[in-house]
Amino acid sequence: MSTPELAALIDDLVVANHILVDEEVLDGFGHISVRHPQDPSRFLIARSMAPGLVTADDIVVVDLAGQVHDAQGRRTYVERFIHSEIYRARPEVHSVVHSHSPSVIPFGVTGARLRPICHMSGFLGAQVPVFEIRHAAGEATDLLVRNQALGQALAASLGSANVALMRGHGNVVVGHSIQQAVFRAIYTESNAHLQSEAMRLGEINFLTPEEAQATSDMNDEHLDRPWQVWKRRAQQSRR
Amino acid sequence: MSTPELAALIDDLVVANHILVDEEVLDGFGHISVRHPQDPSRFLIARSMAPGLVTADDIVVVDLAGQVHDAQGRRTYVERFIHSEIYRARPEVHSVVHSHSPSVIPFGVTGARLRPICHMSGFLGAQVPVFEIRHAAGEATDLLVRNQALGQALAASLGSANVALMRGHGNVVVGHSIQQAVFRAIYTESNAHLQSEAMRLGEINFLTPEEAQATSDMNDEHLDRPWQVWKRRAQQSRR
Amino acid sequence: MSTPELAALIDDLVVANHILVDEEVLDGFGHISVRHPQDPSRFLIARSMAPGLVTADDIVVVDLAGQVHDAQGRRTYVERFIHSEIYRARPEVHSVVHSHSPSVIPFGVTGARLRPICHMSGFLGAQVPVFEIRHAAGEATDLLVRNQALGQALAASLGSANVALMRGHGNVVVGHSIQQAVFRAIYTESNAHLQSEAMRLGEINFLTPEEAQATSDMNDEHLDRPWQVWKRRAQQSRR
Amino acid sequence: MSTPELAALIDDLVVANHILVDEEVLDGFGHISVRHPQDPSRFLIARSMAPGLVTADDIVVVDLAGQVHDAQGRRTYVERFIHSEIYRARPEVHSVVHSHSPSVIPFGVTGARLRPICHMSGFLGAQVPVFEIRHAAGEATDLLVRNQALGQALAASLGSANVALMRGHGNVVVGHSIQQAVFRAIYTESNAHLQSEAMRLGEINFLTPEEAQATSDMNDEHLDRPWQVWKRRAQQSRR
Repeated sequence: MSTPELAALIDDLVVANHILVDEEVLDGFGHISVRHPQDPSRFLIARSMAPGLVTADDIVVVDLAGQVHDAQGRRTYVERFIHSEIYRARPEVHSVVHSHSPSVIPFGVTGARLRPICHMSGFLGAQVPVFEIRHAAGEATDLLVRNQALGQALAASLGSANVALMRGHGNVVVGHSIQQAVFRAIYTESNAHLQSEAMRLGEINFLTPEEAQATSDMNDEHLDRPWQVWKRRAQQSRR
Repeated sequence: MSTPELAALIDDLVVANHILVDEEVLDGFGHISVRHPQDPSRFLIARSMAPGLVTADDIVVVDLAGQVHDAQGRRTYVERFIHSEIYRARPEVHSVVHSHSPSVIPFGVTGARLRPICHMSGFLGAQVPVFEIRHAAGEATDLLVRNQALGQALAASLGSANVALMRGHGNVVVGHSIQQAVFRAIYTESNAHLQSEAMRLGEINFLTPEEAQATSDMNDEHLDRPWQVWKRRAQQSRR
Repeated sequence: MSTPELAALIDDLVVANHILVDEEVLDGFGHISVRHPQDPSRFLIARSMAPGLVTADDIVVVDLAGQVHDAQGRRTYVERFIHSEIYRARPEVHSVVHSHSPSVIPFGVTGARLRPICHMSGFLGAQVPVFEIRHAAGEATDLLVRNQALGQALAASLGSANVALMRGHGNVVVGHSIQQAVFRAIYTESNAHLQSEAMRLGEINFLTPEEAQATSDMNDEHLDRPWQVWKRRAQQSRR
Repeated sequence: MSTPELAALIDDLVVANHILVDEEVLDGFGHISVRHPQDPSRFLIARSMAPGLVTADDIVVVDLAGQVHDAQGRRTYVERFIHSEIYRARPEVHSVVHSHSPSVIPFGVTGARLRPICHMSGFLGAQVPVFEIRHAAGEATDLLVRNQALGQALAASLGSANVALMRGHGNVVVGHSIQQAVFRAIYTESNAHLQSEAMRLGEINFLTPEEAQATSDMNDEHLDRPWQVWKRRAQQSRR
């Protein structure tokens, strides 16, 4: 873990933790990971701690079985299997965010489906799946994705989508990069808020599937623009 | 009041006052107490003042009859009987928060019942009771829990629950420790907000009673994680 | 304008301007006045400017005809007649706030009536009147209370109440002191927000008229507690 | 680009970028322009970047064909045609804001029409048009106003109005000056929020067309008052 590019990636991962807290996607809980650039069977994530306090020294390496590889023997989040099983099922995914993003929770516990209401959230596609952990684990669990089997069930619900809701719990968002995953996590929260507001005004004219795809492709060209603002704000608020 | 552990507990109580203000559970009103670690028939609470301004010097000792024991003869809140009677009725309770937490108020004045919508608020259990002071004191009071009789009526409404709403007034939250009571007060507010939003999207799929218990037990193992973030924020905003 | 008590009152008026901005009752518009302690036929108010920028040097004296008495010949707000006519009609009133407080606007333009939902806003009483300027001035005005006649019409709508809404415009709040008027302006906004949220949960159990009176009397004994917090925050954010 | 008045105008444009971010009209996206004071066939706008980070050095000159004239060969926003075609169609317009202002989005995707609910937003007039890009470009676009033809279609939808909504995208606001455009952009967001809240309380008593015109004229006399506050806040938050 000593090449300059790895160090830069870890810096981005630390900044991403802080951005997601500042933008109110994460609070004292939730996590973001990035696939290891030199070993696709491993990923980087903070040790078990509040994301707003993460520093580069807190990043550990985890394999796809959920095993932590850390010289200091530190532990990471119980729910690391969210990350490991999505990385296993989706080779093109390089970053995963799990959050309790507040505006999204209501869409996970009602029949209302999250759909793209504007061009910033075309990545939501035609359909956002909902993972019901009761189908995999029964009606008496603590809702955590605590093992490989539950991680696989979640990854199966996610399928080829970019976002999956987790009933009574939160959501998971994936991307090709940290910047894309952060962008999508923030605009998933935004879309949920806007859709909830619009639903009380009347029938919503959502993006067509073609518009969703075209806007998602277009936004991928501009990921760095908001990232620079979010990064600056995250750094300033921690000085 | 001079052992190191007592001083540390008082520090936590001061920080808890500030956290609850920063997280918008308390405003200029409301209070948090902790049972005296060396004498279960007494508790510690700030003198009558705004919680955001409390320092260690402002903490006084009160007995279960609501009598203040303070060398300087200072007074505490009129509503100290909320605390004293809950400590009397619930030996396992070591911390009590009384707030006017905004998202919770609507659930106290309508027929809608507060229930756990996600895994962060399993401690709400199957049922959150509502204390109607009119039943104990008639229809012309100032709604304050001003004496032992009213404190006992509130404690009776609370029963074995962790949270009770107070109609037209606010709510009370209890815990085994300051950290647990603070966690529960913050996520009670959060749950009320999320439930209110979800109710307009459709029928809500709440936690089962077993899920509520399992998630509550699980969260008890992670109370320190958000506490560290809240504490740091409270300390930074007061530098 | 040079006695120490007058200087202290002006300091409070300046702080009140800042508090009302910080608490989001005022934005770049709106104003607060206080009756002159040495001459009940005059009042103190800022010159025509944004309330968040007011300093002691910006305070001018206005008489009940709306005439400014200022050695530098400065002007105050067009809507000074809101203040002058209420001071004329209500000798016990010593402070008036006019704001566009956001949560209150919807109650001025619909049939929904603002009523006290909790013990912090008992001062709203049984009924909050709505001033419809069209009745006094027709359907083509700029809605401003621009002259004595409109000020009198507003004062007549207010009657003996503590708060009156102004359709399509905002509201006016009165008090015996700056502290009471500020408290009431802030909790009028709060009540409107809470009532709006509660209305979608079901039928609301409002305070009885007796509870409204008792809680209002009770809060009058505690006006200094939130004032100290608001004042400290206003001063800190301007350092 | 070196006269003192041009430098002052560029300073205002930079401040306007920051104000619109601080007031949550813009986030990492969106833009504001001003017509060139010495050449009405050109306008000033930031190069392609997040508005919150814009400085005077980032301002470029663009002509009404959307061509950038910049010694350093820098590019500006893809959607510069929003600005160029409105400046072409509306000679009296001297500033244009394009934003994704959140409360406005729901009014662009439902049948609910944005109308002036209070005297701060009389400039909305009787009717706020909605631009449906599908009518001009079909159902599979990325929703961006990428060329002159789409800019012309948007300008045609805008007609003589001050604000037009863009379905699934955002809105555009015009003014005689930077200060007026900023004022209108901020109070368009405010009106959308207030109207959305009021709609759930009951039938809304909107401004009459005459009131809308009179209040709009009146506010034009007070544009500097909030501008001073917003400017100070924008400058303080960037120190």
